Amino acid sequence: MAAFHPMAGSRIRISPLLEVASPVAKAEAARACAAPYAARRRFSGIVATAVAASASAATEFDLKAYLGEKATAVNRVLDASIPADEPPAALHEAMRYALLAGGKRVRPALCLAACAIVGGREAWAMPAAAAVEIVHTMSLVHDDLPCLDDDDLRRGKPTCHVVYGEPIAVLAGDALLSLSFHQMARVDSYPPDVDADKHPARVVRSIAELARCIGSEGLVAGQVVDLQMTGSAEPVPIDRLEYIHLHKTASLLEASVVIGAILGGGSDEQIERLRKYARSIGLLFQVIDDILDVTKSSEELGKTAGKDLDLTKRRQHHFCTWLIISPIGRTEFINIARDRNCFGSF
Amino acid sequence: MAAFHPMAGSRIRISPLLEVASPVAKAEAARACAAPYAARRRFSGIVATAVAASASAATEFDLKAYLGEKATAVNRVLDASIPADEPPAALHEAMRYALLAGGKRVRPALCLAACAIVGGREAWAMPAAAAVEIVHTMSLVHDDLPCLDDDDLRRGKPTCHVVYGEPIAVLAGDALLSLSFHQMARVDSYPPDVDADKHPARVVRSIAELARCIGSEGLVAGQVVDLQMTGSAEPVPIDRLEYIHLHKTASLLEASVVIGAILGGGSDEQIERLRKYARSIGLLFQVIDDILDVTKSSEELGKTAGKDLDLTKRRQHHFCTWLIISPIGRTEFINIARDRNCFGSF
Repeated sequence: MAAFHPMAGSRIRISPLLEVASPVAKAEAARACAAPYAARRRFSGIVATAVAASASAATEFDLKAYLGEKATAVNRVLDASIPADEPPAALHEAMRYALLAGGKRVRPALCLAACAIVGGREAWAMPAAAAVEIVHTMSLVHDDLPCLDDDDLRRGKPTCHVVYGEPIAVLAGDALLSLSFHQMARVDSYPPDVDADKHPARVVRSIAELARCIGSEGLVAGQVVDLQMTGSAEPVPIDRLEYIHLHKTASLLEASVVIGAILGGGSDEQIERLRKYARSIGLLFQVIDDILDVTKSSEELGKTAGKDLDLTKRRQHHFCTWLIISPIGRTEFINIARDRNCFGSF
Repeated sequence: MAAFHPMAGSRIRISPLLEVASPVAKAEAARACAAPYAARRRFSGIVATAVAASASAATEFDLKAYLGEKATAVNRVLDASIPADEPPAALHEAMRYALLAGGKRVRPALCLAACAIVGGREAWAMPAAAAVEIVHTMSLVHDDLPCLDDDDLRRGKPTCHVVYGEPIAVLAGDALLSLSFHQMARVDSYPPDVDADKHPARVVRSIAELARCIGSEGLVAGQVVDLQMTGSAEPVPIDRLEYIHLHKTASLLEASVVIGAILGGGSDEQIERLRKYARSIGLLFQVIDDILDVTKSSEELGKTAGKDLDLTKRRQHHFCTWLIISPIGRTEFINIARDRNCFGSF
């Protein structure tokens, strides 16, 4: 197992994600690390890092190096998943353009980490790691369409519809969505060392998780409510904002982790605890994204900065800023997470 | 097995689909029916009926009644698959509007028939039957969008984007696509009498078939090439036309049959023979659809008639008309199908 553990070969350093929330996050990490099992302690470290780590905190994990290593491995699979020179050329080019345009590959890394933490081999979760990135890309391609966010910059490049036209962008998104399930279901995606008896059931369960997190109970539901709020003259209620974040962003992050744990052979208890962690990460992930949207330039972000400030979205940024920047907001967030048992003893 | 066989309880009559091609189809049906196994003979009868049947031919199967019965059963599952009164209301309404607007449910019926013909219970294939109809509906919703076919009439009603707006139509299509996989993968879709050892592997294989038939090797590939041909001033080459039909239409029909056979527990040989039949049905299905587009009114079709005659599409209709109406065209089609071993001894 050691060779596939996310901690294997790591260096002693932590990359900062967000400094402001670090004291509470460090306390949480310390508490979680007191759990009896080594694997649990290590994962808590990763999760705490992802939630909010301090540049001054010293642990045995280099998140940046880990993410880079996993991104390289996942990019190889993504590159091989769409033929570069087979017809229809325009479709494959558009799919490859959107999928291979860069990106941090955070979701695949979470998927692979969850697989490793429950004792699974990386190769068992690699098709799913690719799948969640493909789904994420599909959601961006459709979200950027003129009839939705009408955005022309993504991952530092012109958006898919700007380069290939709106019809191809719609169809490329559809093809990407089906490709994600194809990656997970095709037999040749997996190495021969999977448990022949249990593997198919794990794949089916994982596919159900992925499908649920995309549709009207997940990502798309968040997009629809976000869309409705954007056009509204009313202030965005906090519960509605939380709904958007939990569905539009947290949902796929949650599925990434849960699927990794399922394919890694995790127990039901492990899977459900990881689900709670992942949901918290997902919520904070979107909040951070909103903050960056306000504080960074388009060049730094690789997408149009300040985009989400349009119309009544200002309100949600005021809330996000309050949530993250003020001590009260931070404490409030952690309390909400704790009330929901998001920081269990895993 | 008898209770789940598509021939069970049938009446002695055949509904005509297309009279003109009947002599050759009858000969094929007679040849296929000479195969040694009763099940094979019965399925050949169904296939021959679907390909081209004569009103005067007497067999023991009432296709119209069979389709009606299966449509009722599938509609119940489809209705239950999307909540009518849960948020986001606009999304669920749009999905239900598109999915429950009618339709012959030919793909689900083929799926259920294939399951039954290999000895499976109808309930084993019902989630897949619902899934293929959901995929079909998704493809229509996106195909009708202003940036693609820009159609405003479907199944006798205004199209999804006309009623709910373009953004919701895009997102409803995405949610439908993920719903199709959710239907197939969620455990509670299946009855407890499935073979616990073999069922998960069958579901995974079926999902791989479905995913493959939608994306850049299937339905979407056909949509893209169709799109490119529509805007072209050049004549549509016959091989390109066949590519469009095989991908845009035949691909999902093929998957419907193959998935039904997989979930029903069919052998690899049965599955591959059914695949060849299904591909032939699929090709002819689209050709017939094109003919109806020319010969029927919008009211009769439930969608805009003559739509596909625009621009260079005229040429493809000339080809289709030649293929179906002229004796040479008919013979040619059957010969092509025979060369490709589409009418095997199944």
